Amino acid sequence: MRQVYLDYSATTPVKKEVLDAMLPYFTEQFGNPSSIYGIGLESKDAITHARTQVAKLINADPAEVFFNAGGTESDNWAVFGIADALKDKGNHIITTKIEHHAMLHSCEFLEKHGYEVTYLGIGPDGRIKLDELEAAITDKTILISIMTVNNEIGTVQPIKEIGAIAKKHGIVFHTDAVQALGNIPIDVKDMGIDLMSMSSHKIYGPKGVGALYIRRGVKISNYLHGGAQENKRRAGTENLPGIIGFGKAAELAGENFVSHVKHCSELRNYLIDEVLKKIPNVKVNGSMEYRHPGNANLTFEYIEGEAMLLMLDAKGISVSTGSACSSTSLVPSHVLSALGIPVEQIHGTLRFTVGDFTTKEDIDYVVSCLVEIIETLRGISSVNSKKGW
Amino acid sequence: MRQVYLDYSATTPVKKEVLDAMLPYFTEQFGNPSSIYGIGLESKDAITHARTQVAKLINADPAEVFFNAGGTESDNWAVFGIADALKDKGNHIITTKIEHHAMLHSCEFLEKHGYEVTYLGIGPDGRIKLDELEAAITDKTILISIMTVNNEIGTVQPIKEIGAIAKKHGIVFHTDAVQALGNIPIDVKDMGIDLMSMSSHKIYGPKGVGALYIRRGVKISNYLHGGAQENKRRAGTENLPGIIGFGKAAELAGENFVSHVKHCSELRNYLIDEVLKKIPNVKVNGSMEYRHPGNANLTFEYIEGEAMLLMLDAKGISVSTGSACSSTSLVPSHVLSALGIPVEQIHGTLRFTVGDFTTKEDIDYVVSCLVEIIETLRGISSVNSKKGW
Repeated sequence: MRQVYLDYSATTPVKKEVLDAMLPYFTEQFGNPSSIYGIGLESKDAITHARTQVAKLINADPAEVFFNAGGTESDNWAVFGIADALKDKGNHIITTKIEHHAMLHSCEFLEKHGYEVTYLGIGPDGRIKLDELEAAITDKTILISIMTVNNEIGTVQPIKEIGAIAKKHGIVFHTDAVQALGNIPIDVKDMGIDLMSMSSHKIYGPKGVGALYIRRGVKISNYLHGGAQENKRRAGTENLPGIIGFGKAAELAGENFVSHVKHCSELRNYLIDEVLKKIPNVKVNGSMEYRHPGNANLTFEYIEGEAMLLMLDAKGISVSTGSACSSTSLVPSHVLSALGIPVEQIHGTLRFTVGDFTTKEDIDYVVSCLVEIIETLRGISSVNSKKGW
Repeated sequence: MRQVYLDYSATTPVKKEVLDAMLPYFTEQFGNPSSIYGIGLESKDAITHARTQVAKLINADPAEVFFNAGGTESDNWAVFGIADALKDKGNHIITTKIEHHAMLHSCEFLEKHGYEVTYLGIGPDGRIKLDELEAAITDKTILISIMTVNNEIGTVQPIKEIGAIAKKHGIVFHTDAVQALGNIPIDVKDMGIDLMSMSSHKIYGPKGVGALYIRRGVKISNYLHGGAQENKRRAGTENLPGIIGFGKAAELAGENFVSHVKHCSELRNYLIDEVLKKIPNVKVNGSMEYRHPGNANLTFEYIEGEAMLLMLDAKGISVSTGSACSSTSLVPSHVLSALGIPVEQIHGTLRFTVGDFTTKEDIDYVVSCLVEIIETLRGISSVNSKKGW
């Protein structure tokens, strides 16, 4: 059976060039980068190289990139690190209703510990309103945290404009760019970003590694305390092969950026066009203009998304309802709720995300399966409604 | 030139069987374990298997093992998680002066936030005194955190007795077992351990992954907030290949335990015997009875350890002064200071740690190089002292 993976926003396979770059660091060149003998220093040099590769992708200085365990740790570090470092200045944080749970649950924790959080809503296009952001700022505001690209609906926020507002008010600006990295152009200097979360496994690098960009001069407390790694900012023996892999993946993401975006957006648009043409009562959620090139978030009316997902899975197709991180939860997506989509339609929503290994034949196969599955499910549904279920 | 790695306590190479077990999970079986389609569920099953492998090594139930990024995160989670969860009960923590910095710096952070910490000293054998522990307990004590095996001098603490004292007083007992895992027998149930930190890269598994054992029923706050991974206790996409590797390494550590301990302790004892026989004015630090099987911590009097380290490195030999995590610091080892060793002798101290790939020929080579290097350095030193330097 054909296997079609359309969940690249959940995770990506590691590219061969990335794995090849990593392999020596498991067995031969395994020295602890904090050791001062030869094989330790070689490891340290390799990490420095990876830092340069990641920095280049986002136009940062290498010394502003701090490797860690991934996007969630980066988000936690950003919000808890600023909350602690600036607690004498204020206790107010501004974020949005559509952030990743790594941000939302961190904010909820802080709310139990004396902090106040404003959660901005979004318009029908999935974007925040800049005047609402500015109106939310108080003299106690210490952090604005707004994700670059949403993980469910793929919407791109007006990051440069948000950065300008944050700068005008002297407030630290953090963005979770886990879904954005490698998919939209990111220039931390031009966009006025102070802190930025990144993850390797969304850009064909290994799982378990990521980085927080910290603009030089930003005052932030450490989050993992211990050894002197990462210039004394993030303790713990460096995930050497993981960091090497992340560096290589970042390099490839930079080199292939234009072709990657073209490839993904063409296939994504083809998927949407075909679905809209062949299946009635389907809606695309979120802006098509400001959007992740690989993301198609579609509501199939009168359908239960999980049933669809499982029937697609039986045909070898991997897609998701909402984000992987909350896939086993029955709570309706907070992102789609914020978009004003009724609960019954949220349950009929699937996220398709295409990537570098997706082909036109994959999309044709998926669309043909979708047509069949939707017919079956709507048939049952219509039978059910005739029976008065 | 012969390469001899004698720094297994800093990190270990990944064993071939471990890397082989990991490889499919980078490229083919890369599904996000939180996804509910086929390849996601396969990843989840693989993690469940790894959890069983780690649990077996420490006699825990698999559901009590929570994977994360390593020993440092585990220590941070234990101390901050208990500090938060039990803040209404008290604000006092008992630990030792010889803990890893992941514990000490976390405690220092808490001291700035309203907590009180007692740092127990050690005797000449490197072990805490149980009566001092019991005397330090107050009605505000919420956590006792004492490492199983020290990372510098290899001393094994009386964990079972500490566990009994903690239980008698109803206090949570955490131990950093990063150096102990695979090197001394660990049975969390028998030893009365409530929380235990583990790291993969010290037992021939990959860097960047570890686990916290949390005994069922222990109340502890989360430390990384976000997605519902690890039974909602530790957020962040699972480091799938890393976890698989850790599981395999744990399985091998269990299977090879007896031969590993025999191999390491024989070579370690041979190293110590040869050095004491061939080089005058050398002292072994810490108890030989209660000790990590691979650890030899030696003070070479009238010698500067870093010079020795660099001259050994020039001969292809990797050893360390103190722990890797603070190797670039000029501050004298806090562990050796706690042992009462004078500063000038601390600077003449090296840690040799042997492991599974060490051979008798390696030790012979190291000893012959040491003899030569010490003669050279003491020659310079004696010339210097004659010159009145």
